[in-house]
Amino acid sequence: MRTLRETYIRVRKLTEEICAPLQTEDYVVQPVEDVSPPKWHLGHTTWFFETLLLKAYREGYQEFNANFNFVFNSYYESLGARVVRTQRGNLSRPTVAEIYQYRQHVDAAMMAWMNEPLPTTIMDLITLGCHHEQQHQELLWTDIKYILGHNPLLPAYTEDHTLEFCETPSHASAPFITLEEGMYQIGHVGDSFCYDNELNRHKVFLPSFSIAPALVTHAAYLEFMEDGGYTHFAHWHAEGWDWVRANGIVAPLYWYKQDGAWFRYTLRGLLPLDLNQPVTHIGYYEAAAFAAWAGKRLPTEFEWEAAAPNFAWGDRWEWTESAYLPYPGFARAPGAVGEYNGKFMVNQKVLRGASAFTPPGHSRISYRNFFHPHQRWQLTGIRLAQ
Amino acid sequence: MRTLRETYIRVRKLTEEICAPLQTEDYVVQPVEDVSPPKWHLGHTTWFFETLLLKAYREGYQEFNANFNFVFNSYYESLGARVVRTQRGNLSRPTVAEIYQYRQHVDAAMMAWMNEPLPTTIMDLITLGCHHEQQHQELLWTDIKYILGHNPLLPAYTEDHTLEFCETPSHASAPFITLEEGMYQIGHVGDSFCYDNELNRHKVFLPSFSIAPALVTHAAYLEFMEDGGYTHFAHWHAEGWDWVRANGIVAPLYWYKQDGAWFRYTLRGLLPLDLNQPVTHIGYYEAAAFAAWAGKRLPTEFEWEAAAPNFAWGDRWEWTESAYLPYPGFARAPGAVGEYNGKFMVNQKVLRGASAFTPPGHSRISYRNFFHPHQRWQLTGIRLAQ
Amino acid sequence: MRTLRETYIRVRKLTEEICAPLQTEDYVVQPVEDVSPPKWHLGHTTWFFETLLLKAYREGYQEFNANFNFVFNSYYESLGARVVRTQRGNLSRPTVAEIYQYRQHVDAAMMAWMNEPLPTTIMDLITLGCHHEQQHQELLWTDIKYILGHNPLLPAYTEDHTLEFCETPSHASAPFITLEEGMYQIGHVGDSFCYDNELNRHKVFLPSFSIAPALVTHAAYLEFMEDGGYTHFAHWHAEGWDWVRANGIVAPLYWYKQDGAWFRYTLRGLLPLDLNQPVTHIGYYEAAAFAAWAGKRLPTEFEWEAAAPNFAWGDRWEWTESAYLPYPGFARAPGAVGEYNGKFMVNQKVLRGASAFTPPGHSRISYRNFFHPHQRWQLTGIRLAQ
Amino acid sequence: MRTLRETYIRVRKLTEEICAPLQTEDYVVQPVEDVSPPKWHLGHTTWFFETLLLKAYREGYQEFNANFNFVFNSYYESLGARVVRTQRGNLSRPTVAEIYQYRQHVDAAMMAWMNEPLPTTIMDLITLGCHHEQQHQELLWTDIKYILGHNPLLPAYTEDHTLEFCETPSHASAPFITLEEGMYQIGHVGDSFCYDNELNRHKVFLPSFSIAPALVTHAAYLEFMEDGGYTHFAHWHAEGWDWVRANGIVAPLYWYKQDGAWFRYTLRGLLPLDLNQPVTHIGYYEAAAFAAWAGKRLPTEFEWEAAAPNFAWGDRWEWTESAYLPYPGFARAPGAVGEYNGKFMVNQKVLRGASAFTPPGHSRISYRNFFHPHQRWQLTGIRLAQ
Repeated sequence: MRTLRETYIRVRKLTEEICAPLQTEDYVVQPVEDVSPPKWHLGHTTWFFETLLLKAYREGYQEFNANFNFVFNSYYESLGARVVRTQRGNLSRPTVAEIYQYRQHVDAAMMAWMNEPLPTTIMDLITLGCHHEQQHQELLWTDIKYILGHNPLLPAYTEDHTLEFCETPSHASAPFITLEEGMYQIGHVGDSFCYDNELNRHKVFLPSFSIAPALVTHAAYLEFMEDGGYTHFAHWHAEGWDWVRANGIVAPLYWYKQDGAWFRYTLRGLLPLDLNQPVTHIGYYEAAAFAAWAGKRLPTEFEWEAAAPNFAWGDRWEWTESAYLPYPGFARAPGAVGEYNGKFMVNQKVLRGASAFTPPGHSRISYRNFFHPHQRWQLTGIRLAQ
Repeated sequence: MRTLRETYIRVRKLTEEICAPLQTEDYVVQPVEDVSPPKWHLGHTTWFFETLLLKAYREGYQEFNANFNFVFNSYYESLGARVVRTQRGNLSRPTVAEIYQYRQHVDAAMMAWMNEPLPTTIMDLITLGCHHEQQHQELLWTDIKYILGHNPLLPAYTEDHTLEFCETPSHASAPFITLEEGMYQIGHVGDSFCYDNELNRHKVFLPSFSIAPALVTHAAYLEFMEDGGYTHFAHWHAEGWDWVRANGIVAPLYWYKQDGAWFRYTLRGLLPLDLNQPVTHIGYYEAAAFAAWAGKRLPTEFEWEAAAPNFAWGDRWEWTESAYLPYPGFARAPGAVGEYNGKFMVNQKVLRGASAFTPPGHSRISYRNFFHPHQRWQLTGIRLAQ
Repeated sequence: MRTLRETYIRVRKLTEEICAPLQTEDYVVQPVEDVSPPKWHLGHTTWFFETLLLKAYREGYQEFNANFNFVFNSYYESLGARVVRTQRGNLSRPTVAEIYQYRQHVDAAMMAWMNEPLPTTIMDLITLGCHHEQQHQELLWTDIKYILGHNPLLPAYTEDHTLEFCETPSHASAPFITLEEGMYQIGHVGDSFCYDNELNRHKVFLPSFSIAPALVTHAAYLEFMEDGGYTHFAHWHAEGWDWVRANGIVAPLYWYKQDGAWFRYTLRGLLPLDLNQPVTHIGYYEAAAFAAWAGKRLPTEFEWEAAAPNFAWGDRWEWTESAYLPYPGFARAPGAVGEYNGKFMVNQKVLRGASAFTPPGHSRISYRNFFHPHQRWQLTGIRLAQ
Repeated sequence: MRTLRETYIRVRKLTEEICAPLQTEDYVVQPVEDVSPPKWHLGHTTWFFETLLLKAYREGYQEFNANFNFVFNSYYESLGARVVRTQRGNLSRPTVAEIYQYRQHVDAAMMAWMNEPLPTTIMDLITLGCHHEQQHQELLWTDIKYILGHNPLLPAYTEDHTLEFCETPSHASAPFITLEEGMYQIGHVGDSFCYDNELNRHKVFLPSFSIAPALVTHAAYLEFMEDGGYTHFAHWHAEGWDWVRANGIVAPLYWYKQDGAWFRYTLRGLLPLDLNQPVTHIGYYEAAAFAAWAGKRLPTEFEWEAAAPNFAWGDRWEWTESAYLPYPGFARAPGAVGEYNGKFMVNQKVLRGASAFTPPGHSRISYRNFFHPHQRWQLTGIRLAQ
């Protein structure tokens, strides 16, 4: 088994590998509020270790730059004033080079510290910091894709990028899997790492239900579109329909129609639509509308967790019908760490599974991801239930 | 037992009684999007009977005015173009007198029709129309309160209005009621009227929990405020905290501070704050922040329904922690009636119980009311759980 | 010659005559910020006499209602807090009946006062109040037209309204009038009433120019439209073009196309487009774009004033190329009266002449009206120059 | 005298010299709509030569990249689709290095071309391109200052930057210069280069007036502030007062108060307020409010031009009372060049003179600069008149 120090090294290194193909300019921009500049991710994940560990507990630690707290705090109200989110793309300084120096400075201090025996509380915080950075690795992928995919030159990230493409195409016609009604155990089990929102493990009674073994494909989604999916209100929630009309939505994010044929932007650049791949970059509104059109529904997060051992998952974050709410007995941790999950438990939908952008070791069956119903820059997908 | 015809008469009459103390001008204005002009409610409830019953099924019915469909359709996409919601307060015509004529015209046609034997489908639609009008009666109360309570002259609705004031003040210190863990039946039972969102009745497993027998009072809420409730982020959801700051919220709706003392606007006019009354006109964000401050939480809608036989309810709509979602097996009705509930099942919280403004005969233990987390012009309240 | 008392009576009476055909509901609404509710005009013009005259100078005057200052102050910062402009349409109280009582109360006090000999300063203020009310009479016409003309029922003000229609149609083909270069006297002359912005009378040197003897007709404007006037950027100012696209402007205000034919809303209701009438309800952006399309330009306000004795005017407010700026030696009056004109001298264009809605006795050759370039709910028109 | 080729080389070189101290990241960001990323200026000025000259008239010219037209077109509707202005800061590609290659490519083609004899029309367009680039040099200074001065780290551009600081401090107490009433010649004279908006030269009659020989200093402006300048409405235009309150304006741009003392950001970094320097980074609203407070007014652009031979100017762009309007006989040039000035002649104020950021050879007495009344990121200043 990997030591914590090895995990730390591996995680920190992957972040920089994801950024390696970027030009300096790609690190800087923020085309929309949801998308943070890559250099902000590089700094923010480092700030987490510096602020919650080194400055808090490591004697003699020399802060890299006192102004960085203002620049790299994301949303922790406990930890002082911060650049508002929409302004992240306006910051040319610190430069990319300075932020890499910041990473080296913090890494050096962390590595030296981890050579010493550490109390459990510190080790738990380091583990949390690694998981936190892994979450930002997934955001790095999606934010880089957004930055390049919304540039009028549509540059590729690399010509041979493969992560986005599923090796085994979805077998859309396989029969649904049926689970019997009964009591199911939901939530994280064991003493390995999990987020507070996966606890407590608790019993949920589920009526009998069926769930698809495979994700919805581009082929099926195109059928929905060609059947007027985006133009008939009856499939949509009222707020989803408002969103469609206000934003002129006619297709998933990154789809472009040229001379009557659909293309989509991938990290390899613009490619003809690949019909057997699972549909992605759709929001909950679209997922629910597709399900309604298909005469089906989305699973709840409990149904998903109960049934997941019976199907393959991990290619796309799967929208569920469940709202993001606390489990019975959920309690926020005290202090800044407690701002992690609980304060977002309103107006968001749960996504389950993982995606091709999720870093190795960061997915588990009890993991609860969450986004607003209109958001679609993540590698999302649709699994039907009934 | 009352006949459907008697129910119809009683319901239609109550709507007009609620409006009786108004000046013509009070019928017209729409100070914010959520609040519709009283004359719009008068017309819209009538339009429901005309459109979904008389025009659809009554042979020989003479439409009152073909343009009224455009004016009085609320949100039914199936039923054609409509005045957008924010524009309702810009319509001086049809006049109040014309709308009362419209009511008489439709009532006359309905009454004549109800003298004949009617098929069940028609009777069910009439019943739905009566319940629909009762919902608008509650909105009439809250919208009238908003219109008068946001006028700089702060006029009373009537000097002796009593509905808003609870006869038995809340006994705030009573011990919580505890229910054992177990399987509970949730949803409407029997064949009396209910909305589609109360079905299907289904089993829910609940862990053991405790719930307050009484609502939170003004006294307790004032304590929260004086302890910095609106100024410390830790009690709030992130979106709730944004809402507090963006809108400068410092107290429930209708509270005014004069010379250091709190007053609140009621339908009797501005009165000194009555400490023993249950707090009201707070949104979900505030209810959840209060509960967090108190070291408690809000009940889920299932906990509420399971425990409700053990406490008094009906004075205030009680915010729950539950998001508004479909029950297992929920299905939309076909056609316009099917737009009633399902399309709103996203981004809203469930409120349970009823309020002092809920008309007689319109409350039941399985009733699911729903609003957005920031909305507070309804007669809302707080019941704690743990 | 009319006495001041007779003028007062005549002016106050005309305001009420304009409102006579209205329904109570028509007095209340404010469909857009620019349009004030008729009841607000009734109250505000009365508040002017009460605040600047009776309360300031009339001993023993009994204020009608102390809260009315808050309700009926328009923009006078010197005179205390006020309802923000966008909220005027949210006020159901005071009622229309109460405002008519307010008018009677103030009129009675004014009439009694005017039976006594008055100092010049008071008489000047009363004269100003009458002119102020005449300005609001014009706004009453245009605001009533907007309220009725934006109601989906498109009700007529009266079936036989004539004011809007010019008796002698424009003779569009008449040759331009040419003035020689030279020094011209601009500004009000004599000691009759004028606004401060018409002073000082001063010399302006004008190069030789030509000006049309007649206003641009619907026929000519339709030619501009059919030649792509609203779809080709080259005719427009950059901000005008942004305005056209952001608002989807394709025709003057109040024009409706039905089955391929143009109609326009008038105070008589919807009528087929009358080609010989002067075009109206266009903004400066449109007037300038039309002129550019026609290979001409708009006159400056100085050219207009110099040439006006040579042509008929008074049917439409005529957009000029001039920005609204102070004349040499312009000085604001001290106190609230000084807020009248000077503080608006930025970002507005001057209109000259008068319109069919301008009340008798309220037009003169030196009068400077002003609006923002996009505003078009006034009875505006186009006269070309070159 | 310099040849056109020498001028071209000198102008193109200065642009790159201004950018030399920047980090790559500084080239990319756009903190507000008014401020363009430096790399956009580098590309856009190059695009001007490529599009209006090389692609239009140079046989055999090989376009650098066909997509750049979309990226670097500013506002020329005649020249095709373009990135909307607010999106310029979202473009990480083309990279800074690619844009410098673009400059070299275009420069090489231009230089080769200019070795041949050229017709006058081409030479005139090249001259226009050089003046266009000089305008962008001034914007480069002000945009770089905005980017660095709004970064929370407040980095200096260079530690020894001097341009912003006037060598001879303003002698604020010198007596005003008086000009007699009379006819003055206004507009560009001679056949050297000028913009179309400086023509035609024409006669203007001016009443007698006085004008300050020096600019308003920080000392005087501070006095205005300490006398409640930003808190008393009476000094302000109505729209200026709205702007002050909506944006919480309390001082010029770049002023920061620390421990009771005022500092201002300069290209050297944050410095204590230097009282003898001329006030700068104020908008027209502030300039006019200051003048009203001082019992004076701003000069018109005609007064400025008539009086300018009698005082020193060129340190700050000086707000005038004049609106930006066409001179008699003004005519737009045909084609894209005609979009240069005329289409902005509404809602803007004229500034006269030049500033310390104006490149050598780009100022003349007839030059008409223009901005909206609230804009203050330019090196603006105040000269009083009466």
